[in-house]
Amino acid sequence: MAVRMPDPNVCPDPGRLDAAGDLRARNLIALSLLPLHHRRVIGAELGAGTPAAAIVDGLAADAPALRAHAARVIAITAARGLCAVGWGDDAYPPLLTVISDPPPVIWVRGDVASLRPLAIAIVGSRAGSPYALSVAGKLAGDLAARGCVVVSGLARGVDSAAHRGALEAGGLTVAVLGCGADIVYPAEHRGLAREVAERGALVSELAPGTRPHPHFFPLRNRIISALARAVVVIEAGEKSGSLITARTALEQGREVLAVPGNILNGRNRGGHALLRDGAKIVETADDILEELGLAPARRRDPGCGSPASKSASVTVSDDPVMACLTPGDACDLDAIASETAWPVTQILPRLFELELQGIIKRVAGGRWVRVDSSC
Amino acid sequence: MAVRMPDPNVCPDPGRLDAAGDLRARNLIALSLLPLHHRRVIGAELGAGTPAAAIVDGLAADAPALRAHAARVIAITAARGLCAVGWGDDAYPPLLTVISDPPPVIWVRGDVASLRPLAIAIVGSRAGSPYALSVAGKLAGDLAARGCVVVSGLARGVDSAAHRGALEAGGLTVAVLGCGADIVYPAEHRGLAREVAERGALVSELAPGTRPHPHFFPLRNRIISALARAVVVIEAGEKSGSLITARTALEQGREVLAVPGNILNGRNRGGHALLRDGAKIVETADDILEELGLAPARRRDPGCGSPASKSASVTVSDDPVMACLTPGDACDLDAIASETAWPVTQILPRLFELELQGIIKRVAGGRWVRVDSSC
Repeated sequence: MAVRMPDPNVCPDPGRLDAAGDLRARNLIALSLLPLHHRRVIGAELGAGTPAAAIVDGLAADAPALRAHAARVIAITAARGLCAVGWGDDAYPPLLTVISDPPPVIWVRGDVASLRPLAIAIVGSRAGSPYALSVAGKLAGDLAARGCVVVSGLARGVDSAAHRGALEAGGLTVAVLGCGADIVYPAEHRGLAREVAERGALVSELAPGTRPHPHFFPLRNRIISALARAVVVIEAGEKSGSLITARTALEQGREVLAVPGNILNGRNRGGHALLRDGAKIVETADDILEELGLAPARRRDPGCGSPASKSASVTVSDDPVMACLTPGDACDLDAIASETAWPVTQILPRLFELELQGIIKRVAGGRWVRVDSSC
Repeated sequence: MAVRMPDPNVCPDPGRLDAAGDLRARNLIALSLLPLHHRRVIGAELGAGTPAAAIVDGLAADAPALRAHAARVIAITAARGLCAVGWGDDAYPPLLTVISDPPPVIWVRGDVASLRPLAIAIVGSRAGSPYALSVAGKLAGDLAARGCVVVSGLARGVDSAAHRGALEAGGLTVAVLGCGADIVYPAEHRGLAREVAERGALVSELAPGTRPHPHFFPLRNRIISALARAVVVIEAGEKSGSLITARTALEQGREVLAVPGNILNGRNRGGHALLRDGAKIVETADDILEELGLAPARRRDPGCGSPASKSASVTVSDDPVMACLTPGDACDLDAIASETAWPVTQILPRLFELELQGIIKRVAGGRWVRVDSSC
């Protein structure tokens, strides 16, 4: 494949490729520029060994014009700091080759190598509740701490909480976009996107400069699931896009797991429907790894399963104030006083102490919330 | 069977029974007074048609003394307003005859007939969270509204919320006790027990006057599951007594279902373990009835499944303030303002309006909580 970004740490061979490679790249990119509904046919032909040039000639109404367009895209790719990885390249993720509608090319901002190790996708509501965001951050962090790459979609809510959880745990994370890999959507995730590019990769099958469009996102979801061994759904309502990711995961032979939650607020109907249909229930990162046969089945103990959480869980079980603070739910002084039966004069110093330790923080309305999401 | 309580509306044949009936009652009650570990042998003998007198003679160290004790119990039974229903009586619940360790006699305060119709058990944490109590009340109310008797254990938390939910919906409910049916434990449930006796029954296999003891409760649980077609577990921690009820339900061939919830607070580990092991997931009363083949499988819609909840669900989806108030979670003005992006001057009148409609109420700390638990 021809087009690489200039940073030698990221793309191993930044030099100009030979004419043959250049030609192949141009044809694969030309295939990428065809309407997305051609992906399945292109995938079948590439899988059968048909040269990209022949597929372009077969599918394009005006092949020379399409190739000229591809040449312009190649120029943009390098200029925008992206790396284009095409079908057949060493860096092309093997997990993508086994789906029925693989992208002929993926554009990558960041480290192409982060697309190869064991990856788990975490997806869910864009309007995630505090509970969903806590869960996403914790699971992602625990997975990252165990060496998994966390894949998601850079969307608001659960997606970004998952990326951040992985980053905060010092792990790798991959964001698959519904726009060009040089564009950040939503714009408020610019900083997050930069961090993802530094500690993983932003990925898209859409040519650089492609603006986000609603119909790109469902298609993007199949790449999220394809790049992962398992998809974990957190807080998907009945019509959540995450259910599309779950469906593509099943079609691709990936595991689908779901995190349970509140049945009264309607936010988990989609996730619970998945559980009803046989998805595995997730409470901890180990549940996911066990399901993949990557961790021994264990007798469940009262801890969270993560060694890092043990000390926190001791704190909680020993401390009546911490015991009031359910992760993800803010609690005010009255509620803590009523649950602990402690006088306020005793609670306040304890709250300050816990705040100093960074275990809790004060939020709007004079309420307190746990910073850690360990049990 | 001999011993009936004096109210002709409750026990259909309040007159004195003949000597043969009296004798059989005394022998069955004598069997009841033997240590509980004999229940299995007694069940096998009764099931095989062995007369109660012969079983007493075979098992009791001092049969005449045991029969004399039984005679004193008979006297107490009537005096305490209880009805004793023995194995072989018309009123003895057929569901109890098919378990391996049936009680030879059950003492009933209330309407014996309430032990016969379709019953669903709802069990869960004694320290139920607001969420668990909301769910228990709502499911029990919806089940009761569909003509099911709600069976539980009169304990604090989920049990009492289930009884109350059934009563508030105008339905029947049965409480199985870990003490004599003339004793209320915990004492604070005296009023609830009275209502249950008026609109269902208090039931125990323990002789009148028996004080509660920790080892009675696990054994009591098998009667809760035996009297029901299905057991629904709400918020069971890892060592919850509700898991005993789930186990006895499975041993007795009853359906086990569980309500999912928060994975971070540790309160649902037991319930989620049941789901992992194949228990059906419950979001609505219809999920339970479907599982029992008593309601047609339906396409899940965004409503709660209960016709009564439709209007409320419209309110919620239309009203940004209601949308902030997750059932079971209290929310303060700041949080509502932040979620709705409404000015406080607009929120407050709306809160008052909703309070006037009885849909929400003010709780400690200037927070608001939904009164209904519809979606």
